[in-house]
Amino acid sequence: MLHLQSTTSDRWLQQVDSALPDILIDHAHCEKKAAGTALNLIFAYVEDVELCREMTLIVNEELEHFHMVLKLLEKRGIRFRRLKPSSYGRRLNDLVRTGEPHRAVDRLLVAGLIEARSCERFHVLAEYVNDPELAEFYHSLFESEARHHTTYTRLARHFANDEEVMARLDGGRNTGAGRRFCPDA
Amino acid sequence: MLHLQSTTSDRWLQQVDSALPDILIDHAHCEKKAAGTALNLIFAYVEDVELCREMTLIVNEELEHFHMVLKLLEKRGIRFRRLKPSSYGRRLNDLVRTGEPHRAVDRLLVAGLIEARSCERFHVLAEYVNDPELAEFYHSLFESEARHHTTYTRLARHFANDEEVMARLDGGRNTGAGRRFCPDA
Repeated sequence: MLHLQSTTSDRWLQQVDSALPDILIDHAHCEKKAAGTALNLIFAYVEDVELCREMTLIVNEELEHFHMVLKLLEKRGIRFRRLKPSSYGRRLNDLVRTGEPHRAVDRLLVAGLIEARSCERFHVLAEYVNDPELAEFYHSLFESEARHHTTYTRLARHFANDEEVMARLDGGRNTGAGRRFCPDA
Repeated sequence: MLHLQSTTSDRWLQQVDSALPDILIDHAHCEKKAAGTALNLIFAYVEDVELCREMTLIVNEELEHFHMVLKLLEKRGIRFRRLKPSSYGRRLNDLVRTGEPHRAVDRLLVAGLIEARSCERFHVLAEYVNDPELAEFYHSLFESEARHHTTYTRLARHFANDEEVMARLDGGRNTGAGRRFCPDA
C-alpha cells in the first residue's frame, strides 16, 4: 500500500537511542520541507483545483506537525538548529523527469514516497522507543502520513493513467532511494 | 499606521470595472505568493520561534484567502489562469540588502509593505465596487492585511532596533514602489 521497496533496517534502529535529539530536529525540518513541497505544487499546478485544495490541507497539517515537534524539542531542552540535509530528498528529486506531464507525475510520486517512508518509519519508531510520549506522538503521525501518500498517488493520476503511475512508482522503487531522517541508513 | 507613501490613484480605480476579472485572478495569485513569502521566512529564520509561529498563521490565512478567491472566480464563471506578474514585488525585493541582519529586516518590511498596500487597496475597492458580495469580501480581508502588516513590522524589530526599522521603512517608501494588483498604476 505504501509502495516501498524496503523496510527500515535494524542498523538504523540501533542508532536511534543515541541519535534521538538529532532525529527530532531532523523531523522538524522534514515537516517544514513537506509544507514547502506542497506549496510549490500549488504554484506549479495552480489550474488543478483538487490539487490546490489537497495541497492546502497538507501545508496546514505539515506546519501543525512542525510546531508539534518544536514544542517537543522545547520541552526536552533540545535546541532547534540547522542540520545538513541528508541526500535522501535530493536523490529522489534527481529522478524527476523534465517536461510535462511527466514532471508533474514524478514530483507527486516523489512527495508521496517521502510520505510513505515517514509513515513506515513512524510506525517502526512508535514500536521501538521506550518513551511513552514519543511513542504516542509517532503513532499519531502515522495515519496522516499514510493519507498524504494516498493523496499524492491519487493526484499523480491527474497527469497520467493508472498503469503509467504504477509503473513509474515501481521504477522509483528500484533506485534504492527511500530513506528519511538522519542518521542515513 | 500602514507606512505607505501614497494612496491608490483615481487612474487605477477608473480601470477597475473593465479589469475586474483580471483583478480577481491576480488577487488569487497574490494570496498564494503571500503564503510562499511567509513559508520562505520560516525556512530562512527557523531559529526564531515567534517568527515561525506567526508565519505559520499567515501561511494558513493566505491559503484560506486563496481558496476564497478561487471560489469567487468559480461562482462568477471566471477561469483561473496564469498571469504575467507585475513588477511590483520584484521592484520591492530588489531593495532587500544582502548580509544579515539587514536582509531579514528588509524581507520582513517588504512583506509588510505588500500587506499594507493590499490593505489600502481592499479598503478603496470595498468603497468603490457596486457589487455587494465583492464589497463585503474586500471589507472582510481588510482587517487581516492590516494585522499582517503589523506582524511583519514587529518581527523586523527582532533583527534591528526600532529606529533602524522605522528609518528603513521610510527609505523604502521613497522608491515609489507600493502598487499591487494589475492593472499597474
